[in-house]
Amino acid sequence: MIGMVVSLAVAHGSGDDFERAFAMLAAAVRANEPGNRLYELLRSQTVPDSYTLVEIYEDEAALAAHRASPHMANSRPLTAPFLVGPPVMQTFDVVSHLG
Amino acid sequence: MIGMVVSLAVAHGSGDDFERAFAMLAAAVRANEPGNRLYELLRSQTVPDSYTLVEIYEDEAALAAHRASPHMANSRPLTAPFLVGPPVMQTFDVVSHLG
Repeated sequence: MIGMVVSLAVAHGSGDDFERAFAMLAAAVRANEPGNRLYELLRSQTVPDSYTLVEIYEDEAALAAHRASPHMANSRPLTAPFLVGPPVMQTFDVVSHLG
Repeated sequence: MIGMVVSLAVAHGSGDDFERAFAMLAAAVRANEPGNRLYELLRSQTVPDSYTLVEIYEDEAALAAHRASPHMANSRPLTAPFLVGPPVMQTFDVVSHLG
């Protein structure tokens, strides 16, 4: 399985609007991507306006399908305006397995 | 729900042994912590000897129970020798929900 950890910084005061836009994307991922095992947005408790998105995919094909999905293309214009910098992405192999 | 993202650096060449020690801890977490929703060790695809642990708990009480658990106390001496620095922990509120 493949893991992604993505750091996102949003404009001050825009967190609620960002979360609302993101919720539509997350719902689409869950509804349309059988190869996605986790898609969770985390809001920092210590750094204001900072989020970390954690994603897990069954395999490279599932990650490729996510990246090429229409809901990703459609959601980008809705979430991107809130970001104050490019997302910082890290890629991982999942060592343990989802229980 | 509460999220934790923990960055871990291990001594070069010790990854396999670290993963074996960690697997016992992960199994104990899953077997004994009903308030734990996710406990996944991720191995970086780009930074050698680097791991990120992602944890999700139902609430603060579940996180407190995790920290006070005997399996955490017992596993620390098994995993700590492989670390080359202190774990870097970030705490989060989970925005979206586990599907």
